[in-house]
Amino acid sequence: MGNTFGKLFTMTVFGESHGQCIGVIVDGCPAGLPLVVADIQADVEKRRAGPGPAATARRERDRVEILSGIRDGFTTGAPVGLLVRNEDVRDADYDNIQFKPRPGHADYPAYVKYGGLNDWRGGGMFSGRITVAFVMAGAIARKFLGLIDVEIVAHTVEIGGIAARSVELEKIKQRAGKDPLRCADPSAAKKMAELIAAARAAGDSLGGIIEGVAVNVPAGLGGPVFDNLDGELARALFAIPAVKGVEFGAGFAAARLKGSQNNDPFIIKDGKIITSTNNAGGVLGGISTGMPLVVRVAVKPTASIAAEQPTVDMKKMINTTIKVGGRHDACIVPRAVPVVEAMMAVTLCDFALAAGLVPGVKLNENRRAP
Amino acid sequence: MGNTFGKLFTMTVFGESHGQCIGVIVDGCPAGLPLVVADIQADVEKRRAGPGPAATARRERDRVEILSGIRDGFTTGAPVGLLVRNEDVRDADYDNIQFKPRPGHADYPAYVKYGGLNDWRGGGMFSGRITVAFVMAGAIARKFLGLIDVEIVAHTVEIGGIAARSVELEKIKQRAGKDPLRCADPSAAKKMAELIAAARAAGDSLGGIIEGVAVNVPAGLGGPVFDNLDGELARALFAIPAVKGVEFGAGFAAARLKGSQNNDPFIIKDGKIITSTNNAGGVLGGISTGMPLVVRVAVKPTASIAAEQPTVDMKKMINTTIKVGGRHDACIVPRAVPVVEAMMAVTLCDFALAAGLVPGVKLNENRRAP
Amino acid sequence: MGNTFGKLFTMTVFGESHGQCIGVIVDGCPAGLPLVVADIQADVEKRRAGPGPAATARRERDRVEILSGIRDGFTTGAPVGLLVRNEDVRDADYDNIQFKPRPGHADYPAYVKYGGLNDWRGGGMFSGRITVAFVMAGAIARKFLGLIDVEIVAHTVEIGGIAARSVELEKIKQRAGKDPLRCADPSAAKKMAELIAAARAAGDSLGGIIEGVAVNVPAGLGGPVFDNLDGELARALFAIPAVKGVEFGAGFAAARLKGSQNNDPFIIKDGKIITSTNNAGGVLGGISTGMPLVVRVAVKPTASIAAEQPTVDMKKMINTTIKVGGRHDACIVPRAVPVVEAMMAVTLCDFALAAGLVPGVKLNENRRAP
Amino acid sequence: MGNTFGKLFTMTVFGESHGQCIGVIVDGCPAGLPLVVADIQADVEKRRAGPGPAATARRERDRVEILSGIRDGFTTGAPVGLLVRNEDVRDADYDNIQFKPRPGHADYPAYVKYGGLNDWRGGGMFSGRITVAFVMAGAIARKFLGLIDVEIVAHTVEIGGIAARSVELEKIKQRAGKDPLRCADPSAAKKMAELIAAARAAGDSLGGIIEGVAVNVPAGLGGPVFDNLDGELARALFAIPAVKGVEFGAGFAAARLKGSQNNDPFIIKDGKIITSTNNAGGVLGGISTGMPLVVRVAVKPTASIAAEQPTVDMKKMINTTIKVGGRHDACIVPRAVPVVEAMMAVTLCDFALAAGLVPGVKLNENRRAP
Repeated sequence: MGNTFGKLFTMTVFGESHGQCIGVIVDGCPAGLPLVVADIQADVEKRRAGPGPAATARRERDRVEILSGIRDGFTTGAPVGLLVRNEDVRDADYDNIQFKPRPGHADYPAYVKYGGLNDWRGGGMFSGRITVAFVMAGAIARKFLGLIDVEIVAHTVEIGGIAARSVELEKIKQRAGKDPLRCADPSAAKKMAELIAAARAAGDSLGGIIEGVAVNVPAGLGGPVFDNLDGELARALFAIPAVKGVEFGAGFAAARLKGSQNNDPFIIKDGKIITSTNNAGGVLGGISTGMPLVVRVAVKPTASIAAEQPTVDMKKMINTTIKVGGRHDACIVPRAVPVVEAMMAVTLCDFALAAGLVPGVKLNENRRAP
Repeated sequence: MGNTFGKLFTMTVFGESHGQCIGVIVDGCPAGLPLVVADIQADVEKRRAGPGPAATARRERDRVEILSGIRDGFTTGAPVGLLVRNEDVRDADYDNIQFKPRPGHADYPAYVKYGGLNDWRGGGMFSGRITVAFVMAGAIARKFLGLIDVEIVAHTVEIGGIAARSVELEKIKQRAGKDPLRCADPSAAKKMAELIAAARAAGDSLGGIIEGVAVNVPAGLGGPVFDNLDGELARALFAIPAVKGVEFGAGFAAARLKGSQNNDPFIIKDGKIITSTNNAGGVLGGISTGMPLVVRVAVKPTASIAAEQPTVDMKKMINTTIKVGGRHDACIVPRAVPVVEAMMAVTLCDFALAAGLVPGVKLNENRRAP
Repeated sequence: MGNTFGKLFTMTVFGESHGQCIGVIVDGCPAGLPLVVADIQADVEKRRAGPGPAATARRERDRVEILSGIRDGFTTGAPVGLLVRNEDVRDADYDNIQFKPRPGHADYPAYVKYGGLNDWRGGGMFSGRITVAFVMAGAIARKFLGLIDVEIVAHTVEIGGIAARSVELEKIKQRAGKDPLRCADPSAAKKMAELIAAARAAGDSLGGIIEGVAVNVPAGLGGPVFDNLDGELARALFAIPAVKGVEFGAGFAAARLKGSQNNDPFIIKDGKIITSTNNAGGVLGGISTGMPLVVRVAVKPTASIAAEQPTVDMKKMINTTIKVGGRHDACIVPRAVPVVEAMMAVTLCDFALAAGLVPGVKLNENRRAP
Repeated sequence: MGNTFGKLFTMTVFGESHGQCIGVIVDGCPAGLPLVVADIQADVEKRRAGPGPAATARRERDRVEILSGIRDGFTTGAPVGLLVRNEDVRDADYDNIQFKPRPGHADYPAYVKYGGLNDWRGGGMFSGRITVAFVMAGAIARKFLGLIDVEIVAHTVEIGGIAARSVELEKIKQRAGKDPLRCADPSAAKKMAELIAAARAAGDSLGGIIEGVAVNVPAGLGGPVFDNLDGELARALFAIPAVKGVEFGAGFAAARLKGSQNNDPFIIKDGKIITSTNNAGGVLGGISTGMPLVVRVAVKPTASIAAEQPTVDMKKMINTTIKVGGRHDACIVPRAVPVVEAMMAVTLCDFALAAGLVPGVKLNENRRAP
């Protein structure tokens, strides 16, 4: 089960960086959901190495292939199988790392766990490429959530210590998708881009913080104690390579507030119960409150850097150094933005199905018997 | 499964704040582990309301009863059932909250989820009392982990914005257990205590940050992608009421480091591969590295405060106010410290069993046939 | 998870034959279901050793205690915890079996699995007493299923080779509950009783076959491939000690029919699609058809018999013999009848919740806000 | 999770009869297991429509493609992805069944469950073609089990009421694989073949019984109560379309034995504890005894028959008839034999891993660091 996530809407991911493909089996998707390959391809494109300053030189076409579960533009209720082929793979880049673990990578613990028998090339199954699978699953989840009006947007709120100014949600939606760094504050984005360029020039890398927001999440999703929406979403987000922290709402800052400041007062507005602030980030007691679900993830700086670093030779058991070849992002943050969206979508879709939520619009009206 | 955690070593918790008891069924514990009620009682005491300045006036004796799975001082391999009875329950304290959700509590989303049919008294199953169950399960896990030399300690590193100075692990072990606030920095603890007293006097409350450290965790526990040790531990920690953020190693601070700063260099020391720094917090690619596992959790200020707060009447659908009666901790952080330890223990025990780790010492040598 | 069954409506069982109690935690039960201890006690009574010719001399009062999840006669949505205390335990009866495995019992494989460290007294967790936990969980499930008109009845169809005549469902419902052997054919029951008396007198035991029928099961429960209703129910039934076979509808007899005989023709009756025969036993492709769900289980003869039997001494590794003391049923079949009902109820309840079935009557109407 | 089976060694199946492919993701396979496509292809061939009298005219090449998890002839520890493409698909054969459920098929309950939105062609995901996925997963499991000397063989013991004589295991191994009907009794096989030919000529079909035997299964696999080896294997076997019954050892016949006859006496032979008979079929209390694991499954006659049958039009809600076109096996039993082997292999592999069994021979010795 190590590569399966979810209870009712599940994704099982497979593939390795330098193997044949990266793929996903999405089980539990209701029959009749309108879904074509272009829906999925669009999200995959958002994740793919773009022309921006943060990106790797490795180019993958990442053409989505359907293996199962979709017929004539609608899901059939059977597991949806999807994959993208691996291309532009240069094995030689990785020849020297078989016994030399790259600092900040999973090479060493993987070596211990698998006794050296795993496919270490490009990090194998620990590669960030597995996030293509997350994004493909997320694309399906978003189609479903769209039917119940749940909308998800993530954006870069910090890179290299440069924090974006807080802007309203509508502007985030308009701007983040267009900005190469997925940042909704243009002036911060400019500084971030400069920092990234400098880091790249120095053979170094930068991390940052991504914020994900889901609006129109119905109140009542999740539950006590281990069916908690926040815990399950955190688990999904920590599966994204490089994520080192997850917080909801005020998060770590809440630890510095007083109860009278942090508690979100309930009020009635337009006949609905809402809170006038959202320090809770839309989740209390593991259950959605109906307010926007707000989560932030800390992304560490890309572990693969050009500079020479101390490491060991695990075979000879001596200290040595490594220069990590290959083509790597100087900052992975922008490409992780759609991955955060995908993980939010998959998790929310799973909880929505568990709550028995049925889309208001009919699924695949044409196919059904009158 | 909403109240069950774990894959091989599982805990299923039950009970509500104002019901008969709080209990836990621990399944998957190997037969022959030495275990007496005093082992569990000791950890429960650490969690119980103490004499310190942060504590509630509610007093529970919390006497641990064994329901199953232990015979003559050893586990039998059957599920271990444990409970503590609820006592000193004052229903009247909660009469006014049935339709008035307390800000910062799960009352409102629970009302939506259960249609008002849950036991809302004292927060019902959302009450912090459920953490007694976590601690009982953790006590068993710690006994097991002790056999493979894994040691876990958590301590308060921040309350009300006052951060403890960083001290070495040995001092944390010596001091944190004795300090009423579970803080290893006496001068910070003094200031924290003053802040808590002031908050209490003002009918307000404080939050803080707890750090948990596990040493001697063998490298190789966990795995890709959703079998990740950090993700699963985060899920466990978010099940603790009031936790709003979880980070590993450098955590959110890693987002501000460069790759060259954040990467932990591998070196050989005493014939073993270690890293010279531990920004990773002992986990890379979801797998333990053998370095100390370091996690920090953000605890929000106690939601129950004496001051009057705006809320709504869900029945009449009007705005109103609430004064939360009952007896509450002005700062829950110190009592959450052993709970963090318990969650770390349960999670690590589950992963250790999955990795096939067998204690070096023999279990229950006397009982076995020669 | 070894002691947990179900996906959404789960039961976690605990306890051992000669430990403190037998209990169950039922998670996933909706809030607001009317439930009092008498509901559960009634089913426990049906399972308890009765005055009939098949029964053991061991007497347990089996008073059901509520641990959690029920308040003022309704479920609260929290896990429902229930237990019965073990009484009338005679340890001395089992002194000689610690190293002498009883033929037909789990003593030997348990010894291998647990290295002798389990509680072997009375079979420990392998004892038929664990089925009290099944029955308690089943009582809750039946209350829920009753709200959607699903009715479950099981009855003895064969003991010691004596087969009951097939009678119509209404008569089964009327008669089976009143007959000490739970058999709806009085003349067969008479012969069965004689055979049992003879077997008991000879220090021997008998097995038999139980048929369970669930009516008004909605079509559409279950699914491909491993979400199959028949497979999951079979798994539940094989958890009943002594069950060695499970078949649905025509079962093994279907293997001797031609397709033209075995296929159940679809017809429309009273505006509904039904089949004119029910060789499928109400399940096709792992999904309920809406016809009665019909399952039969083979129960082996009680393994504990008074006669001397060959066995081994596992400590001395020599051949020896054993006379199984204790007080045992000469035929366990009648007492297993309510257990079969319970397993059907728990499984169907789990699938019904997964299908989003909501009772037509309102749950706990009084408690809810207007 | 509906299409995933197993706890540690899991298979997730995907694909539909008339979709792109049938595939499987096997997760939890240890790294370093020698595995090439030919290993898997060999088992797939055994399942494929053969030249025998029982077979369908539909021809699939069923060329196994590797998607992931295998490199240079060894598993990498990552999920193993495998598929075969669907070919020789004739949609027109199924045009008339969209609203006319075929008797004995899952068409009707699937229509109810999916509201007509599933892919009904060829039965979609309910088709027997999904068993190719089972066989591919089984091939991997058998490679693993081979390293710990577990051997699995299944054979036809009854078709159309003709029972094979009981022959010793060695002869079963020699003969069953070569016989087109997978029957180890040549004279019975001859009669079975005649019956099948007659059934085919009459536009009818036959069922039968398959017996699976696993030898060298170590004692101690499985456990109480719901971790039971027999229950879990039964669940796997009921996932094979057309299986209507599962029994272990003496099975239903045990219900007619006395305890003194059915109990298997323990004896010491060659320094090992065995039983002198094996009515238990190698499992007691849900745990393997070390004796051969013996299971029998009832396979109903192929539901698709040429003769006209009564059915309904679900759209017009009228009674009608159907003649099932397409190309179908007159008896599915021989092709189900390797599927039974596969399900036994997958289940045993899962339990073996849970028991921490490590192959005596080293995995992939060449790759590992010295």
